[in-house]
Parts: sequence; C-alpha cells; structure tokens
Amino acid sequence: MNFETLDVEQAGAVLSVAISAPPMNLLGPALVRDLVALIQQAEADDTVQVLVFSSADPDYFISHVDILQIPEYRQATVNLTGGEPSIGLLFRYLSNSRLVSIAQIAGRLRGAGSEFALACDMRFAAAGRAIFAQPEIGFGLVPGAGGMQHLTRLMGRGRALEVILSGNDFDSELAEQYGWVNRALPADEIGGFVISLAHRIAAFPAGARRQIKERINAIALAPTEDFRRDSNAFGAAASNAESQRLSKVALSRGFQTRDWEMDLAQELPGLAQP
Amino acid sequence: MNFETLDVEQAGAVLSVAISAPPMNLLGPALVRDLVALIQQAEADDTVQVLVFSSADPDYFISHVDILQIPEYRQATVNLTGGEPSIGLLFRYLSNSRLVSIAQIAGRLRGAGSEFALACDMRFAAAGRAIFAQPEIGFGLVPGAGGMQHLTRLMGRGRALEVILSGNDFDSELAEQYGWVNRALPADEIGGFVISLAHRIAAFPAGARRQIKERINAIALAPTEDFRRDSNAFGAAASNAESQRLSKVALSRGFQTRDWEMDLAQELPGLAQP
Amino acid sequence: MNFETLDVEQAGAVLSVAISAPPMNLLGPALVRDLVALIQQAEADDTVQVLVFSSADPDYFISHVDILQIPEYRQATVNLTGGEPSIGLLFRYLSNSRLVSIAQIAGRLRGAGSEFALACDMRFAAAGRAIFAQPEIGFGLVPGAGGMQHLTRLMGRGRALEVILSGNDFDSELAEQYGWVNRALPADEIGGFVISLAHRIAAFPAGARRQIKERINAIALAPTEDFRRDSNAFGAAASNAESQRLSKVALSRGFQTRDWEMDLAQELPGLAQP
Repeated sequence: MNFETLDVEQAGAVLSVAISAPPMNLLGPALVRDLVALIQQAEADDTVQVLVFSSADPDYFISHVDILQIPEYRQATVNLTGGEPSIGLLFRYLSNSRLVSIAQIAGRLRGAGSEFALACDMRFAAAGRAIFAQPEIGFGLVPGAGGMQHLTRLMGRGRALEVILSGNDFDSELAEQYGWVNRALPADEIGGFVISLAHRIAAFPAGARRQIKERINAIALAPTEDFRRDSNAFGAAASNAESQRLSKVALSRGFQTRDWEMDLAQELPGLAQP
Repeated sequence: MNFETLDVEQAGAVLSVAISAPPMNLLGPALVRDLVALIQQAEADDTVQVLVFSSADPDYFISHVDILQIPEYRQATVNLTGGEPSIGLLFRYLSNSRLVSIAQIAGRLRGAGSEFALACDMRFAAAGRAIFAQPEIGFGLVPGAGGMQHLTRLMGRGRALEVILSGNDFDSELAEQYGWVNRALPADEIGGFVISLAHRIAAFPAGARRQIKERINAIALAPTEDFRRDSNAFGAAASNAESQRLSKVALSRGFQTRDWEMDLAQELPGLAQP
Repeated sequence: MNFETLDVEQAGAVLSVAISAPPMNLLGPALVRDLVALIQQAEADDTVQVLVFSSADPDYFISHVDILQIPEYRQATVNLTGGEPSIGLLFRYLSNSRLVSIAQIAGRLRGAGSEFALACDMRFAAAGRAIFAQPEIGFGLVPGAGGMQHLTRLMGRGRALEVILSGNDFDSELAEQYGWVNRALPADEIGGFVISLAHRIAAFPAGARRQIKERINAIALAPTEDFRRDSNAFGAAASNAESQRLSKVALSRGFQTRDWEMDLAQELPGLAQP
C-alpha cells in the first residue's frame, strides 16, 4: 500500500499506519483521500484485522481540518459515506468497520483530529506528550465530526460542556481522567503496549470480534442521523459571516502554521477581539 | 441586581453569584425566589453570558431544601416551570438556558444542594473543602430534583446506587473520581481557575455556545418527563406517614441547624431507630 | 439456609454469602441452583434487605461458567427467568430485585463471574487481590450474561472494546479507574467497609430503597430484550464448530483447572494456534 500522507507497514494481521502529512498533519483532501483508500483496501484484504494509527510528527497527531479546503476534503469522503460529503460519516464508517482500530497518540490532536481518534475503537496517549482540544467554538463553529456525540457519552454532560465550550487544551493525564482516552501510558512503553495489544486482538476469531463490535456500537455509537446533523451544523456555521471573519483573523495571525498553533488554546479567545 | 440571599457582581459578561442565606444556606422560599429572579434577569440581559455560583458560607454551599416549607419553596419556582411547582423543573430550566452556569463548590451540598450543582453546566470543587450527599433515603424520600437522573448518567449504575442508597457523605476527591464534579482543585487556585474559565467561555460567539448546549443536552440531559416523575415521587413520599415521622425525629434532634448537620451522614441511619 | 456451594450467615437484615464451590468456584449447575434458591428465599423473607457476596477462595471469586455443563447450568435458572434458561436473565433478575446486592471481590472473576458482579448493585475490590476479565473472545464467544451491556454503560465504548476484544486480565486498580468496580479498597479494610455499608443501607426505609432502584434501573439497566439477545448469541456461538474446537484445545491444555487458569490471559491467544 502506497499513500501520499500515510506510511503503512503490515506485520501479520496488523497494519501500522503513521500519519505523515507535513508540515503539520492537517486533515485536508490528500489525507482524507488516503484514509478512505486505506480503509477500503484494508477491509477488502482478509489478511488485515487491526489498524494502528500513529503520527510521524511528534508535535501533531492530526492538527485539525484544513479550513481553506472544506468542500474539497468533504468531497473526498463520498466513497465510504454513500455519497454524502462528511468526515463525520466517514469516521462513523470506521467505527462500524469489521477492522479494529487503535489510536496511539502523541502530539496535538484538535477538532477533527480528536474526532478521528474518538472514532477509533481504542485510544492510548503518550503521557506528557499529547494535547487534546475541540477548539471549534473559537471560530463560532461546533464539532462536526462526532466530537459532541462521543465526548458526551464518554465523559458525561459536565466534562463534555467544559471541553467543548472552553475550546481549551487538555493534556494526556486529564484526557485519561475524563475518559477521552482509554489510558495514558509512559512514552517509552506505549509503542510496545499497543502493538502487543493489536496482535493479541488480531489472534482471536473474527466472527466474535465482529459481533462484539456490533453489540457495543448498538449501545454506545450515536445514530447516523446524529452524526449527519452535527456535520450539517458545522457546514452551515462555517459559511456564516461571523465564522468566516474569525477564520480570516485566525489565518492572518498564523492559524494553520506549525509554530503558531503549538499554543492554540492561548490564542483562541483573542480571535473575537479587535 | 439586588437580592435577599444572593450577592451578585458583574465583570464583563460574567455574573459572580455568592449564595448567602444565613444561617446555613437552606433552599427555602427566599433563596428559590431569588434564583428564579436572577435567572430571569440574566437571561433578559444580553450583556450576561456566564453565571458563576459560589457560597458566602465556607461550611455550606446549599445545605438542602427547607423541609418545613416544601409547598412554599416549590410554589416559588412557577415563573420558570410553566406553572408547575417543582425545583427539579426549575433546575432543568437552568441546564437548558442559553446562559452557561459554573458551580464553584466549597462546603456541604446535600440533597437539592447537590442537585442544583448537577444542574449547572460544570462543577469544580475545592479539594478537601467540599462534602457531597444525597441523604433523602434517610427520610424515606428519593432525590426529587434531578439527582437520580444526573448521577446515574455521570457515574453509572453501581456508583449512583452506592451514593443514593447509602445517603453517605462524599469528599471532593471521591466526587471527582466518581464524576460528581468535573475536577477537584486546590482551594487556593479554584477561584482563579473558575473565573478565568468563565471569561474564556464568555468571549466566544453566543450562537455556537447555544448550539453546543442544545446538542449535548439532547444526549445527556434527561427528558422533562423524568424530572417531573422524580419531583412528584419526592412530593408524594414527603407527605406519607413514615417520612413525616422521620422528619419530626430529625428536627427534634437538630436537623436544619448548622452544627448538627456538620456530620449529617453519621446521624442519618439513627433516625429510624427508637 | 443451607446450600451446597454457599456459606450464608445472617446478621440483622444483612445476609453475608460466601461462594464456596471447590476447587475453583466454577459457575456450574450446583452454584446456579444455589444462587436461585438463595435469591428466592431471601426475597420471601422480610427480615432480609441486603446481600453481601464474597468468596471462600482467595484466588477465585467466580472463575467462569462450566463449559462442560452449559445446558445444565442454564436450565437451573428457569425458576427466576420465566422459564427461559439463561444466566443473563437470572443476573438481570437480581439487579431488579428489592434486595440490595453488594459484591466484595477478591480473586479472579472472569466471564460470567465478572457478569455476576456487574449484576450486583455495587462492587468493591480488594486492592491488589482481584483480577477481572471477559475472556469469551478467546473461545470465539461473546459475553452472554450482560457483560457487554454493563461494561459499555459503565466505562464507555473505547474501554469496553479494549476489555472485551482483548480478553485481557485487569487488576483492581485499573478496574476502579475504568469503573468496573465502585472502588478498590485496601484488602484489610474492605470487609469492614462493606459490612458497615450494608447495615447502613439496610437501616433505611424499604419503600424508598425500592423506588430508587427502580428509577436508576430505568436509566442504566439494559432492557430484558438486550440481555436475551446476548444470551442467545453466546448460546449459538457455543455450539458452532470453531468454538467447540477452541474449547477442546483449552480443556486439553488445562482449562477449568485451578493452576492453569491463574494466568489465563497469557494462554488465551495461543488457543487458536496449532
């Protein structure tokens, strides 16, 4: 498997996928196109059972969507969403796949980056090395790719409101405490832990794995209609005047550049100020 | 804004509200009346976005309802409940408000005191300084203002049953672990943390804030009908013979006095004993 | 009360029940028959309010079902399940009972052992002394007695998938962090804590206790139909060729013997390998 933005290695039934979309792992058309192709090819290949996602960039897991190419990256999802341009529906497709997906997280994952990890079946964070946020509110937007659905169910009303209304950065320890990830693990142990877990799961009978995912998703994965509604709300808000103004201000200050976003949480409340 | 039982200060878009109903912040008619008026006035004032609730009494945040004035404090809610006398419905109104509410907790909050905090959008407790309980069962009652709805969703079946069937006191550390609060924070940092969070949230666009609350409430806030059923169950139980006898015993021993309630959890199982 | 596999002592309104089915507390026909009789007799006895379950074996709380006697132990449930042979429905009956049930856990509890504890109203684990697992996937099976229903609601989608897809062993600390138990308590304190909690709860009015259980179960206990579906899925999978082959391999290596199962998690992935 060869991709522009993904480095893929297969060992047994486990595909290790390193996200590599310099300069900062933005979720734009190229990365979405590659994720769609990866999922399609892996699902069609009976030798593949488990996907492990990590990042080739120590500072960014997936930074967030490329706000300059919203129609383009959305359009890139349609092969897996029944024709609807929506990364929320793409991510929900992954959650429903027969493939088991594990996110091994270091670096920043904000907005749709966090939502991609939430769509994976499990999430492990490198202690002290991962930063989580849903910063949409800073742009007058709402999380549109499942963040509200997953976070509310994982951490409850109060913590989900804190996370999403504040747009703040959360470190791996707090992400573990709030249930954003399964666990935070020491940075020098997480790789071994995750690959060993992946091979363990891949060794078990596929039929039971599929049944277990189906039954747990029936309880805890929000209905398609809720993903669609959030996705549409994001799309509608992104084209209103206030959001467009805030996006322009952000871009003019350094948004979508590597250095400026290192401390995005600090910059966020200032966008609305003259 | 001037109230009998609330000290209110506005700074920017944030209203800081200190509950001050000596001698022990009982939730009686005066405090309910003031909370209703505060919410109405704040909602009508476009300059207000976030409410921060704290207590002027270091030992009591809100002790619980005044059991000598149940019809009176219930009646005081009707302006915000469509005419139904119910603090459960009043608290649910607050959860649904466009205003963001944050509880900054020190002291005891039992029964409806806990339920008021649970109705707020977020809750932070001063480590080592807050005590939580739902002691209704000691009086043959059930939590009637949303406690069963919120706690079961926040902490799951087993922990909610422990809390509500035992009527025990829980300290801030356990409240954090069980998800009763977002976090326990050092007592000398909580004030700065909460006010900074409040101003951060208030700086973001109001439309997105409203949409986020709506979507998260659709997932995690129980339906009105469930609040009404719990509220009615509390009302019905409060007028049965056993509960009235237990209330009399409690009042004769010191219930609704400041000192006796400091260690209420210890006294609770004894009420039913001769 | 006299049972083959249960040591029962009554003190006030609290029944302490030690599970004692040597050599390893397998959930077979005898233990199921005794649990059914115990619940029936305790429910019929107005002097009993709370059940505390512990194990007479320090290494095994309940190991799991006896896979050599699936039809027999299932049949032993019918007096409490409306005639349907299903331990999932039996366990759900316990969750719905007017009796309050508390699991005081030390030793291993895997598969239906974990599911029995999950059916109890509360669970406390001896720190460093308890080991939890849902190892069904190793046999091509799914948890059939409520494990998927309870764990998904208690710990959320990601952690439940990790637990159930990995079949791994989890210690008491992680079980506490994931919400599998209410709390892990020091081994020398747990007995005193649980018995004191049991007597506290038993002292409160029975009517309120019943109402509280009803209301919390309405929110957090899965519908009968979901228990039945999982129970049937387990039954169907147990009779397919792959599961029967894996069971034979496991039995030939030492499954259902005390020593071999001490470290079951290590052995599990190897079953499918030649």
